[in-house]
Amino acid sequence: MRRYVAALLATATTAITAGSVLAQPPSIIEDFKPSALNQPGQQYPQVNSQGYVRFRIAAPDAKAVHMSLGLGGQGGTAMTKGDDGAWTGTTAGALDQGFHYYHLTVDGGTFNDPGTLNFYGSTRWESGIEIPAQDADFYAVKDVPHGQVQQILFASPSTATTRRAYVYTPPGYEKNVSARYPVLYLQHGWGEDETAWANQGHANLIMDNLIASGSTRPFIIVMTYGMTNDVKPGAPGGLASFDIKPFQTVLLNELIPYVDGHFRTRADARHRAMAGLSMGGFETKLIASANPDKFAYIGLFSGGTYSLDDVNKIPGFKEKAKLVFVSFGSRELDNPRRGAPPGMPPSDPRANAAALKDAGFNSVFYVSPNTAHEFLSWRRSLREFAPLLFRD
Amino acid sequence: MRRYVAALLATATTAITAGSVLAQPPSIIEDFKPSALNQPGQQYPQVNSQGYVRFRIAAPDAKAVHMSLGLGGQGGTAMTKGDDGAWTGTTAGALDQGFHYYHLTVDGGTFNDPGTLNFYGSTRWESGIEIPAQDADFYAVKDVPHGQVQQILFASPSTATTRRAYVYTPPGYEKNVSARYPVLYLQHGWGEDETAWANQGHANLIMDNLIASGSTRPFIIVMTYGMTNDVKPGAPGGLASFDIKPFQTVLLNELIPYVDGHFRTRADARHRAMAGLSMGGFETKLIASANPDKFAYIGLFSGGTYSLDDVNKIPGFKEKAKLVFVSFGSRELDNPRRGAPPGMPPSDPRANAAALKDAGFNSVFYVSPNTAHEFLSWRRSLREFAPLLFRD
Repeated sequence: MRRYVAALLATATTAITAGSVLAQPPSIIEDFKPSALNQPGQQYPQVNSQGYVRFRIAAPDAKAVHMSLGLGGQGGTAMTKGDDGAWTGTTAGALDQGFHYYHLTVDGGTFNDPGTLNFYGSTRWESGIEIPAQDADFYAVKDVPHGQVQQILFASPSTATTRRAYVYTPPGYEKNVSARYPVLYLQHGWGEDETAWANQGHANLIMDNLIASGSTRPFIIVMTYGMTNDVKPGAPGGLASFDIKPFQTVLLNELIPYVDGHFRTRADARHRAMAGLSMGGFETKLIASANPDKFAYIGLFSGGTYSLDDVNKIPGFKEKAKLVFVSFGSRELDNPRRGAPPGMPPSDPRANAAALKDAGFNSVFYVSPNTAHEFLSWRRSLREFAPLLFRD
Repeated sequence: MRRYVAALLATATTAITAGSVLAQPPSIIEDFKPSALNQPGQQYPQVNSQGYVRFRIAAPDAKAVHMSLGLGGQGGTAMTKGDDGAWTGTTAGALDQGFHYYHLTVDGGTFNDPGTLNFYGSTRWESGIEIPAQDADFYAVKDVPHGQVQQILFASPSTATTRRAYVYTPPGYEKNVSARYPVLYLQHGWGEDETAWANQGHANLIMDNLIASGSTRPFIIVMTYGMTNDVKPGAPGGLASFDIKPFQTVLLNELIPYVDGHFRTRADARHRAMAGLSMGGFETKLIASANPDKFAYIGLFSGGTYSLDDVNKIPGFKEKAKLVFVSFGSRELDNPRRGAPPGMPPSDPRANAAALKDAGFNSVFYVSPNTAHEFLSWRRSLREFAPLLFRD
């Protein structure tokens, strides 16, 4: 019943960035539980069955404590100090289901909530919270065979660095020593890094569960850092002036050869996909469009679209592209100027996808219900995208 | 020259917990640089060539900011607010080389330094800082073949959970598909978790470098969570009342079979080692002593010793144990009551090691110079231990 109430609320609300405002604030149901992303033993933050979040921060001598997370446009969540010296506050309404980043301000300083785990976003490790989704089962830890997520370090002469990537190998990879596997290169968004798809995205669990149910063919996923446009160390430039070349060189000339040399891959375009969320979709489009001989399967998750004009400019694209997958959170389409990433063309992504389909492309358009530019949109996008890969 | 000065200071100092006090405070050399563990683009905290740390925290409206890290016995580092609203402070002396945990207090609340990465210790994610060590080369990222660190999820019926471990596979593991490898089970300390040996310990880099120089045989390392004595969820009990059985069941009945089933191991005692730091050494001694048929190589890093009495109680231990390795930081031996873990027997570990050697054991005792109960002791211990493994 509680799940039903939560689902109903989520459907009835109007999107404002990360949250939603109710026309009539309902009474708050006092069934708050510690967030699934809390540090071991921590009781706060808590989430209730409606999707409200309650924070609690011990800072007895502070003059002002404020949470960045709240309903968009309302400036986060105000906190008030109790007699016990702890500051508490509850969001003014239900947040979207799924994962949200946040931080707090204590007397003018920016800190993380000591109650929660941190996740790399906004070019820093931020506090994270999870609002249980009604469809959370697809990324739950279940008693199914689990693949492995491994860190690799690869030499990058072009950037004069040793770079890190994470590689998901599916269940059975270790034992089936004669089998070779297709590979998906999967990119994070602006301000995130190569940890995002496993930590925030649960890409490994999504794959484990899809493979266990027979919904997708087993494949390898490679996730690396895509922000190569630093204007100074650690200060990435914007997308407007984004130059794809440094990252393209790392990906095509360094990472892919390393992966093909160290893992049992099928090292041709028909067994190689690229996808990304937000900026990662932007990168995917730039690299896949310029290299139709490298990737036959393409996914843009809240990261732009392909118009007919776009694809007509790419020689041989129609013959080579086995899949052009485009997805958004529903709230991004409701209000594209809020949800769309910088650089997204102003054309209607749904109409673009339909035009590609009419032109004979394997064009798939997916909309994540009741989510915005946020990770539940992208977890669901991966769930929809993976079964469509490597079917030829 | 700077390296020489730093080394000289470290040798001349007297240990107090995590740091050292100089008889005559030298003048501070103003060559502070951002710590290697800072978040991308963050300028503070900084470390100078002497091993002093300087902190800077923006919190313009705070009444009091204090750092937990400083010279032991002096209550951390005081911070003072400048005209720009930022609080700064410098440790009262040089810290030990290597890794240190810390946090800060802002108006009575406990937070992490937003400038640094976090590391799991003290049962929470804490701020970390690295004082460059003069021998840091052995755990540096170099242009050598790199092994992989992978996350595995294994079913644990005994605890009714899906548990996580990290597995280091050495360079070449992927390609040499007919080779089988010995395995070291390597445990973290109290309050830490399965992330510690790779994150704080650089176990993977230590191994990559040892293997590249031909100093050790390639082997697999498995690191899992050893704190199974929670008195309530997330609140681990003390060591005095520690019951090894739940962890022993996870390790022997669940993890080892999983690893032997999913990796190309040599699944016998002669090709299996166990070691751990602090509480992990305590666990190693309990489990290895009770199961001499399971592990032929044993390492206790700042985590107890084996006396002749101990080993005489274990049937067949002398024939089966190929190596009994015990190590400490030199400052733990200078002042054992400070540095020794709870549960460490009061007997002299150096004399114990010598007695075992006289009794015909392959007993090795190692002392890490100028370090205490801290990670540089344990990185060095692994460097010394690894080459001694699996030689028969």
